[in-house]
Amino acid sequence: MKTLHSIEKLTNAFSKLPGVGVKSAERMAYAVLSMEDDDVNDMVESIVKVKSSVHNCPTCGTFTEGEMCEICSDSERNHKVICVVAEPKDVIALENMNSFDGVYHVLGGTINIAKGRGPDSLTINQLLDRIKKDEVNEVILGLDSRIEGETTALFIARLLQGSGVTVTRLAYGIPVGASLDYADSLTLSKAFEGRKKV
Amino acid sequence: MKTLHSIEKLTNAFSKLPGVGVKSAERMAYAVLSMEDDDVNDMVESIVKVKSSVHNCPTCGTFTEGEMCEICSDSERNHKVICVVAEPKDVIALENMNSFDGVYHVLGGTINIAKGRGPDSLTINQLLDRIKKDEVNEVILGLDSRIEGETTALFIARLLQGSGVTVTRLAYGIPVGASLDYADSLTLSKAFEGRKKV
Repeated sequence: MKTLHSIEKLTNAFSKLPGVGVKSAERMAYAVLSMEDDDVNDMVESIVKVKSSVHNCPTCGTFTEGEMCEICSDSERNHKVICVVAEPKDVIALENMNSFDGVYHVLGGTINIAKGRGPDSLTINQLLDRIKKDEVNEVILGLDSRIEGETTALFIARLLQGSGVTVTRLAYGIPVGASLDYADSLTLSKAFEGRKKV
Repeated sequence: MKTLHSIEKLTNAFSKLPGVGVKSAERMAYAVLSMEDDDVNDMVESIVKVKSSVHNCPTCGTFTEGEMCEICSDSERNHKVICVVAEPKDVIALENMNSFDGVYHVLGGTINIAKGRGPDSLTINQLLDRIKKDEVNEVILGLDSRIEGETTALFIARLLQGSGVTVTRLAYGIPVGASLDYADSLTLSKAFEGRKKV
């Protein structure tokens, strides 16, 4: 008996999700078969809903369901400090620390010339407009330390040179709670560079 | 920023799939956001299609998209030998070995009195009808060796006692290619019991 056509199609669809191989996708497809109708309808509606209702905030570019995201529309937050990140998921990670009260700007990626992603593919012009309009004091570059992140950070830092805006970047170092021998040597050397008096 | 409501709902829906924890479900939900519209439509349609077109074969109970499954409607197969299994997925596993030319009967579970699943919850009467109608010679019990499987096998074997039908069960033993020290002791003792002259 060959696998049923519709099971095969669903397996194929599920295997496009991150971290889902063909075997797990097949198991998931069979599970859908034995799920309650309500649960299946729920899943289908949720997929459609996510696709239709979630979009990028017109100001900062992070995911939102409303007109503007709750961070940009929050007058309690400091709109004069912008943390620049590559992707909407970075905003979620940083918000989880519950200690930053500024706002964000999502670039929509990083500069990677080899892959044809130049500065024009990012929302850098919108960032410059925001900096001017909101009289921003500080831009925190929340980009990672891989080559694309570094390139993008350097590019933005150069653009803002002489504009009077303070440009900072997140500190590199050993993750809190991690042991030294698990840290890679680049992280360790960054931790040495950034050492502080105790 | 709290997680968006629609993302949360989809995360919840995905986490009902087997082997998908909350973290993976969330990752999958965000992935849906950045998927092409075509791929998302494809996934939604496949889920609906599986639920609407796949049903149990009226004869043997395995999954099928047509009126009757391809095994039951195949006149080349030996309809006088029935392999009894617990679930439709067992049929798929056994069919993958490509060496059984009889037909199947899916019980829809196993007997588990503690969980309120008595013999009446299984398709045992339909099995008896088939045995009579098709003049079946042999019933192979393809049930596992856990307590529920053993109970169910014993129950069916008793029912068929004196009916003239040969009742057999699959051999237990060491999986081919597995080393002895990885086999559990129950499997090893079954392998000893079932030892054969070489």
